[in-house]
Amino acid sequence: MKSRRIVIVGGVAGGASAAARIRRLDEHARIVVFERGPHVSFANCGLPYYVGGEITQREELLLHTPQSLWDRFRIEVRVRTEVMAIDRSAQTVRVRDLTTGEEGSEGYDALILAPGAVPVRPPLPGLDRPGHFFVRNVPDVEAIRDWIEQHRARRAVVVGGGYIGLEMTEQLHRRGLEVALVEALPQVMAPLDPEMAGWLHRELRSQGVHLHLGDPVTALEPPAESESAAASVVRLRSGFRLPADVVILALGVRPEVTLARHAGLALGELGGIRVDDYLRTSDPHIWAVGDAIEVRDRVTGQWTLLPLAGPANRQGRVAANNVCGRPTRYEGSWGTAILRLFGLTAACTGANEKTLRRLGLPFEAVHLHPGSHAGYYPGAQPIAMKILFDPESGRLWGAQAVGRDGVDKRIDVLATALQAGLTVDDLADLELAYAPPFGSAKDPVNLAGMAAQNVRQGLVRLAQWHEVERLDPARTLLLDVRSAEERRQGAIPGSVHIPLPQLRDRLQELPRDREIIVACASGQRSYFACRVLEQHGFRVRNLTGSYRTWSAARETPGAAAGPSGGMA
Amino acid sequence: MKSRRIVIVGGVAGGASAAARIRRLDEHARIVVFERGPHVSFANCGLPYYVGGEITQREELLLHTPQSLWDRFRIEVRVRTEVMAIDRSAQTVRVRDLTTGEEGSEGYDALILAPGAVPVRPPLPGLDRPGHFFVRNVPDVEAIRDWIEQHRARRAVVVGGGYIGLEMTEQLHRRGLEVALVEALPQVMAPLDPEMAGWLHRELRSQGVHLHLGDPVTALEPPAESESAAASVVRLRSGFRLPADVVILALGVRPEVTLARHAGLALGELGGIRVDDYLRTSDPHIWAVGDAIEVRDRVTGQWTLLPLAGPANRQGRVAANNVCGRPTRYEGSWGTAILRLFGLTAACTGANEKTLRRLGLPFEAVHLHPGSHAGYYPGAQPIAMKILFDPESGRLWGAQAVGRDGVDKRIDVLATALQAGLTVDDLADLELAYAPPFGSAKDPVNLAGMAAQNVRQGLVRLAQWHEVERLDPARTLLLDVRSAEERRQGAIPGSVHIPLPQLRDRLQELPRDREIIVACASGQRSYFACRVLEQHGFRVRNLTGSYRTWSAARETPGAAAGPSGGMA
Repeated sequence: MKSRRIVIVGGVAGGASAAARIRRLDEHARIVVFERGPHVSFANCGLPYYVGGEITQREELLLHTPQSLWDRFRIEVRVRTEVMAIDRSAQTVRVRDLTTGEEGSEGYDALILAPGAVPVRPPLPGLDRPGHFFVRNVPDVEAIRDWIEQHRARRAVVVGGGYIGLEMTEQLHRRGLEVALVEALPQVMAPLDPEMAGWLHRELRSQGVHLHLGDPVTALEPPAESESAAASVVRLRSGFRLPADVVILALGVRPEVTLARHAGLALGELGGIRVDDYLRTSDPHIWAVGDAIEVRDRVTGQWTLLPLAGPANRQGRVAANNVCGRPTRYEGSWGTAILRLFGLTAACTGANEKTLRRLGLPFEAVHLHPGSHAGYYPGAQPIAMKILFDPESGRLWGAQAVGRDGVDKRIDVLATALQAGLTVDDLADLELAYAPPFGSAKDPVNLAGMAAQNVRQGLVRLAQWHEVERLDPARTLLLDVRSAEERRQGAIPGSVHIPLPQLRDRLQELPRDREIIVACASGQRSYFACRVLEQHGFRVRNLTGSYRTWSAARETPGAAAGPSGGMA
Repeated sequence: MKSRRIVIVGGVAGGASAAARIRRLDEHARIVVFERGPHVSFANCGLPYYVGGEITQREELLLHTPQSLWDRFRIEVRVRTEVMAIDRSAQTVRVRDLTTGEEGSEGYDALILAPGAVPVRPPLPGLDRPGHFFVRNVPDVEAIRDWIEQHRARRAVVVGGGYIGLEMTEQLHRRGLEVALVEALPQVMAPLDPEMAGWLHRELRSQGVHLHLGDPVTALEPPAESESAAASVVRLRSGFRLPADVVILALGVRPEVTLARHAGLALGELGGIRVDDYLRTSDPHIWAVGDAIEVRDRVTGQWTLLPLAGPANRQGRVAANNVCGRPTRYEGSWGTAILRLFGLTAACTGANEKTLRRLGLPFEAVHLHPGSHAGYYPGAQPIAMKILFDPESGRLWGAQAVGRDGVDKRIDVLATALQAGLTVDDLADLELAYAPPFGSAKDPVNLAGMAAQNVRQGLVRLAQWHEVERLDPARTLLLDVRSAEERRQGAIPGSVHIPLPQLRDRLQELPRDREIIVACASGQRSYFACRVLEQHGFRVRNLTGSYRTWSAARETPGAAAGPSGGMA
């Protein structure tokens, strides 16, 4: 039997993963990988850490070389080689060696496209002057390191508050640069809701990062005479002028579909390659994986672009199975993602509140602030958690968490629960590993489930942080049940104070003709208070997440106006 | 309406949890908690850390006082008060104030038993002499601290290698004592399989703990003349004599059922209180929760005793719901548990191999050793993982993990997957949060699922660590595909060495008339080699977990003899 010829375009996450899996399934296939860049299988997600020096050696970013892939897998890798065109009827690709300029062609029985994504280039005047960098591959970060060293850069401006922008902010700060972060939206890390992003804003400010939110860049100007050391001056819509010795452009990425488009493959409305449930393109001999494709959002059913390494790797494996005659479905993605930002970790899975509102889906949102482990054991840190669920079925829609410890674990548990279709009742029942250094007898995930259960069972109704600014004192009383000492450290303006232990003795001070919204620090004691008050005949709601959520939201400009106030 | 009278016996995990939940559900009930000990709602699981000084203040262990429970919840707590008897027909309990000796009675509409467990007292000569301690409550650990200080104790013997025994070993070592740990079984932490417990044995030995496995204590003897500083000499069956200034007895606990038995409530065969799916005892007005009850093992369906704080707390909540007319089922427990031991974390969920063998359930076991996060980012640590699954359905039976980082997260994800009924295919597909500091594009849980998938899809057959000792060289060749450098640091005796990159060129050196078992360091490269060899017509199996699992197993005495060799 003639051995099959499999060609893969792109040798990083999805492409490399597919190639290795194909070899395991078919020892006799000829597998050729074409990679436009100088490196195959490099650690994309590690790039910012090389700039900051947490990863010290360039070699650590290079997970494989063409030689190591040949030795281990008999995969032929041609780096610095671009696939120029696909001849679908002949089943060949035309390739060009970018070093020599030589062209040639390669036949395939199956073709996998894993071309990745390219950075969004904003249409800014002055973009092409030196000192402006994208962060997409190893040469990019080497150039950034070289530039910083050669120009003794002290001031950096990072444009874009997504994952790369935030990681670059952290890493440039770690190198000792003064960093300004500019974001056109009113918040960083768009998958978070604005009140959760508030924790990141607070952390950035506390680290001395100059944060410019809701303020897009309008131009990259040459420095004035007096600013001649700077590479550029970043001008914002508000009029701010930020002199920078180095500018990082991290406005996101878009699918690299040039090759696919020229080959006449179907594209989606978002500009990614359209694939079926088996990752096959509109050509039966061509599959596609990774940042270049559109995938189904498993929560909403919508097509989406999700340029993340985890899904890309799994897609590579799925495509390999399908290419090798082992039909395997890729059902879509859940949008699980995580970021470390200085001492904080922020992570999310599934749909956020912004998306649920946009799609008009029914939801309830619970906020809570449990400790990362048992409070009596040293070192516990609060985790700001938010879970979103369908009040009818109890099914989880999504979850977000921000904190200094234990965030990754809780989001991974919640991602697993989401993927398994669990309800908030199931979350309350999860039997998670408890010893004092690791968790609590009731884990944060259990507590989130229990808080949601209480809503579904009619034990409490919730008020949200964004309602606070718009309360009508004639109709609503805001009651703070924290201790006097806590209250001295900050309180929601207009709130009335009765500490929880005194509540039952001071019921006569509370109005029966107005709704009472009860707050404490985290929403737990205020829930207890709600139960007391309701059973004494008061109309009450619990401010979920209470003071901590409310105060974090104030770190996000305009957020207090609420989700209808344009926080999309 | 007359307010209901609810009496709770026992004011720690399950009892305290029930009391607080009942108040939220019924503001008007009279709730009385009787606690035999001096403290209510103390941090049971924190006790060892108070001995070692990680928890410095006794007050940190006291989560509530009778006063704080009254202030917040209007719960009447009577400490140092024992419930002597239950009059089920009159629905009263007879109580005695242990301080004054006064007796009285208290009527109930609903009674919740949360009496907990008592330490197993071994029938050892000399048990009652001073210097021997159990670890069950705050006075116990205060007595241990006092004894150590007053006697300037230098040598400790801990009897029993369960959670408490191991935590006490760590904490006494932390205080600077020389510690011997004695366990009658050939391994510590019985919920782990012997090869996984091997990691703990290695860690204990590397910390300088004197480890005596498979060697029960036969007597606690008075010290000889020359040993007069010692409190006792612990004599082992093997003849070893261990002089000790302090002896910790941690042989496990048994349900405290004196009250229940005298009241004629049904007990189970394991000696715990029998409850139904709503945690109701054989008396319709009496519920029971916590360490005193038997629960269903959710994996095997068997009754079991599971004295853990997490389940106890959730049972308290469930019983409260049922007492308050909100029918809620408690379906049983999954046995999720975790231990920190020096730098290691060990955790498990679901059924282990020992149990599956005993019950004759069909299973496959996969071992792997993935990094806790991306290898290119500093600080990644290997995690020794084992998952057990039904080869037919692919459903997970259980999982175990040991390592220095990220163990708790993976076991919590696997516990969630187990509870949700996921298959190994689902594990492979889980979309977990990936950034370099937290995980890998293919998380350890994904890799476990993929390894199991490969077995189910017929891509590889597995050999287990315990087969290695019994290989017949006439029928089997053991092939090591690691690098020469790795092999110099240790190898399985009798193995033949061909590094993976040379394999395809040296096929002619391998026998076609014998089975080849392939090993590497972790089982990953050996899997690649298996795929190569099988597709070239060889009969092969992959040594799952490979050298690392095999060498860890050797830390457990007798384990090499395998599961049929009496390792139950």
